[in-house]
Parts: sequence; C-alpha cells; structure tokens
Amino acid sequence: MLSYQFVRHSVLCVLTAISISCAADPLASWNDGGTKKQIVNFVGDVSRRGSESYIPPAERIAVFDNDGTLWAEQPFYFQLAFALDRVKVLADQHPEWREKVPFASVLRGDLKTVLAGGEKSLGEIVKATHAGMTTDEFEAAVIGWLASARHPETKQPYTKMVYQPMLELLEYLRAHGFKTYIVSGGGVDFIRAFAEETYGIPPEQVIGSRGVYAFEMRSDGAHVVKLSELDLIDDGPGKPVGIQQMIGRRPVIAVGNSDGDLQMLEYATSGAGRRLGVIIHHTDAVREWKYDKSSHIGRLDQALIRAGEQRWIVVDMERDWRQIFPSDP
Amino acid sequence: MLSYQFVRHSVLCVLTAISISCAADPLASWNDGGTKKQIVNFVGDVSRRGSESYIPPAERIAVFDNDGTLWAEQPFYFQLAFALDRVKVLADQHPEWREKVPFASVLRGDLKTVLAGGEKSLGEIVKATHAGMTTDEFEAAVIGWLASARHPETKQPYTKMVYQPMLELLEYLRAHGFKTYIVSGGGVDFIRAFAEETYGIPPEQVIGSRGVYAFEMRSDGAHVVKLSELDLIDDGPGKPVGIQQMIGRRPVIAVGNSDGDLQMLEYATSGAGRRLGVIIHHTDAVREWKYDKSSHIGRLDQALIRAGEQRWIVVDMERDWRQIFPSDP
Repeated sequence: MLSYQFVRHSVLCVLTAISISCAADPLASWNDGGTKKQIVNFVGDVSRRGSESYIPPAERIAVFDNDGTLWAEQPFYFQLAFALDRVKVLADQHPEWREKVPFASVLRGDLKTVLAGGEKSLGEIVKATHAGMTTDEFEAAVIGWLASARHPETKQPYTKMVYQPMLELLEYLRAHGFKTYIVSGGGVDFIRAFAEETYGIPPEQVIGSRGVYAFEMRSDGAHVVKLSELDLIDDGPGKPVGIQQMIGRRPVIAVGNSDGDLQMLEYATSGAGRRLGVIIHHTDAVREWKYDKSSHIGRLDQALIRAGEQRWIVVDMERDWRQIFPSDP
Repeated sequence: MLSYQFVRHSVLCVLTAISISCAADPLASWNDGGTKKQIVNFVGDVSRRGSESYIPPAERIAVFDNDGTLWAEQPFYFQLAFALDRVKVLADQHPEWREKVPFASVLRGDLKTVLAGGEKSLGEIVKATHAGMTTDEFEAAVIGWLASARHPETKQPYTKMVYQPMLELLEYLRAHGFKTYIVSGGGVDFIRAFAEETYGIPPEQVIGSRGVYAFEMRSDGAHVVKLSELDLIDDGPGKPVGIQQMIGRRPVIAVGNSDGDLQMLEYATSGAGRRLGVIIHHTDAVREWKYDKSSHIGRLDQALIRAGEQRWIVVDMERDWRQIFPSDP
C-alpha cells in the first residue's frame, strides 16, 4: 500500500521534474519531527537570499566534534586502539618495551592495567606511537591501520562506525554553502588521514590536538617531523583557541556531544545574528551506546544543562535517528 | 598601427566568441616573455584533465608570502607602522610611556632610536599593541587604522600598495582550481583583517605569526583574547610548520621574496609530481624599490642562490611586470 507521504512526494516530483529539490530527502536518516525541522528551518533561514537572518556564504562556518559526534567513541577512543596496535608493530624495534610499563601491559594485551595507569601511561603510549617520524610516514601508518583494523565489538572497520545522519547533515550543510570543519580533541594528523574520504572534509578543515612540528632538510628533500612535546590540546577551552588559530572567525554552527565541546558551543552561539548549537545525546543502548554524565568517555553533564539555558538543539539518538550506522538496515 | 599579436587575438576572439578564454588577458600586468610563459604552462599542465602532470583540485594548494610578495615592505614593514601609530592611540591610557623606552621614542616620532633598539624594542611595542584585547577588538583596530593610514613615501593607503601582477596571479590560480593561502612572518590577525577584501583570501586561508590565545567567558558571552606570549613565529623553518598546522598537506606552488621563504619553497618543491617555486626579485628602483642580499628588510641571498639550483622561477620586477601598483599608469 502506498502511503500518502510517498504519493505526495511522487506527485510533487513529477510536477517539478526539472528541479533538483525533488531528489530523495537529503536528511533521510533523520526521523521527521521537531529536531529535524529546527535544523532545516535554521539552514533555510540563513542561506535564503532576502531572508532577515541571511548569512553570506563566506561566513557560513560549521564546526563538528569528531569522537561521539561524527563517529562512535565506545568502548574507547578509536585513536587509542590505533596507538595500542602501533605499540605491537613497533615492539621489534623496542625490545626494552617487554619489561617496561605501560608497554609491557599493551604487549600482553592487558588493557585494564594500561587504562589503570591513567593519563601518564596513555601519554607515554601516544608519544611513542605518534612522534619521531615525518607527517607523511605517520599518515601512511594510519591509512594502513584503518584498512585492516576492526572495532572490538561490531567487527566493522572504524571508518564504518560513522553516523549516517551526520554524513547527511555534513553534505546538507555543504549543499547550502557551509564550510564544514572538524574540531576534535583527537590528534589532527590521525583524523586528517581519513576525514576527506570518510566525511568529505579536506585536511585543511580538520582542527585537532597536535604535537610540536619541526622542519628538516634531508638528503631526499624537505620534511615536517612530529616531535613528542604537546603543542595544542584542542579540547574544552582549547577548541575556541584552535578555531581562532585555524579559521579566524566565529562559527555559525557548532555540533558536539560532550562537556569537551561546551566552550566551542558557547563561542559559536554567542556571536551576533542567528547561531545554532547542537548536542548529540547518546540515548540508544540497543543500536549504539547509552551514556552521558557518568561516562568516562564523552562525559556529557554541564553542556547538557547549558543546552537547556541556551536553547541548543539536543539530538536524541534513539528518537531522532532512523538509522545510525551506514550498514544498519 | 595594429600589432600582429593584437590582430591574432581579435580574430581568435571572434572565432570563439562564446568561449570565456577570449576575455582580456588574465595576467595583463605581466610582460610577455619567459617568466609569464613558464607560469602559464605550469598552471595549464597541472590543471588540464588528461595531462601527464594533472593534479586533482583538492590538492591544488598555492602559498604566498605577504610582505614583499603581495604588497610592498619598504621603507619598513607596514605592520610596524600600525604598531607605532597604535602606541600613539594608546598613550593616554599609559602616561608612564612618556618616560619609558622604547615608547617615549615612538611618541617623540624618533623612529631611528626605536629601530636602533632592535628586536627587544620592537618586541615590547608589538606586545603592548597586539595583546590584551579580544580578537574582535583587534580586528576593529586594524580596519580602522587601514582606513586612514598612509604610506610615508607614496601617501597611498597601505592596501593600495599591493602588486597588481600578484592580484592577477592569485585570481588566475583560483580560476584554475587552486586554493590560495598567505603564509607570512607577519601577524595572522593583522593580515586577516584585510586579506579577504584586498586579495580575495578568506581568514581561514591566512597563516601567520601569532601570540597565545585564551578563551574567556564574559558577561556578554564567549571571547578569544590575545595574550602577549608568542606561539608561532611563522618565518623561515616556521613556515612549513605553520603550513602543516593549518593545511596538513604539501603545497604545489610556493611564492616568496626573501630568505624567510626558503624553507617554504624547499618544502613545496620537494614533494612528488610537478611543483612550482617562485621568487619575486625586487629589481625596480624607479617604480618600486631595488634590494636583495644586503637589505635589512626582505633580505634575499641564500634563497636566490638556491633558486638557480632548484630551477625556481625568479620574477624580475623591472623586466617582468608591466605595471606594479594598481594605481600605476
């Protein structure tokens, strides 16, 4: 039986056959309802010439957190999985690691002990796996890893653990003249290795945490080398700082999912004119994960309270998303 | 008398009247000759589908130094003129400056003594005039200054001291799918205030030296504040570092005019595939300034030697540029 909705859509499509607006719904994975309507109305209002809220294309900047906003972040950040696997790859060059904390625990596959070591242990692992090579070498390592690594629970490639509704939203915004950026606490060189293919976001539109870089002339030419000292922690108040370093203007739209995105949301939405703040709330224990204020990863507490005060849109994954991952039915 | 060149151009234009290639020469301020031909050939080769040297649009990154490459830098960097004028504007709030070096010299108009103080004096002046305010406030200060300030010798607004051939080259590259960036030793927030209007380069495509930024919540909302500590000196080896921070891929074209651009040129041109390095050589004492290896500003020595070894294009301003400034006849 054909639904009224379907017939209406078909008739409209025939009537306006030469218009591209008759393509399938660009936000098909979003359930119809208040959330979707608010987003569509906002984008329409700011991009329609003659509208009171019109924003010129050059100023249409939309920033997105990555972990937990564009792709999943459970049971632990995917970049940590890369770092742990990388320890194993590099172990032959570091025989001393077999006796040395935290590397010995990683090599034994004892993740619990690694995590118990807290930031100090993780910092050592990140330094050992993310520095001491050129940016080109690091990029190749990430691409190689992504090709074979699988998520521990879903057994999917990590780049398939992205949210279908967010892929559609990115594309929808770009179709309306927005420049889409990632602003992530994760490592910028890690994300740049896959963001263009996965999200359609080129390297120059990825902002993230980074170590210090150094220029080096070698016999085969000029290189940029990754050092182990931290240069920018692009999280919390570091996000507006990263945005100023890299973009130099206040975003119109900011989307995040945790307290680490609070300052970015404040920064974007306290600019003049129409602004949009969006928080992705992980509410779906069946199709994804359900967590907020008591989670160690992607903790969402203050930013959720602030969302109510500031009238940011809170996306309820269970209610608002018809489909979560691209491979979902 | 009509030249053969003109007749040939006109005939071709009539024959292919619907083609946009018949518009006026997009590089009209460049004299015909080897330099122009090399640039046009390179751009054609890398942007023509099916060409052996074809480079996909996403990878077409062109980076330009600013001082001495896009606009003039004599008799001293224009940003220094801003800083000196700013000292005068702020003097009422700093009565102690009347007795304090180097501010007292600035207020007396004694530029010679200020410059004799070297980097230490200039550093103090830059800190006092470029920090302690929000990025929005600083931008307004620069825009206000540019509207009224005049070049000490030509009496032109500084934004008219740009090179007409470079404006054409920027536009020409963009018309061929290149993303044009500024990579300057000058302050990023200073350049961002005028780069879009002056060069068609948006703030997010300006890389420059910068101080540390801090995020601040105030009663009127969120701000990014400029602190006085230096964060990146985007000069010499700092240029490839800034490029990696902001772009994350190796540029295809790099254009500079001094030894401060050497590492950027090495970095761009030692990548795989076709690459173009260009050096603007200030050779025109009549229409602009003539200087290279013995100049304090825009010293060009090692990079000129290296240009010969690396076959970078050296633009001879006197020979290659028909017109220098937009207001020239």
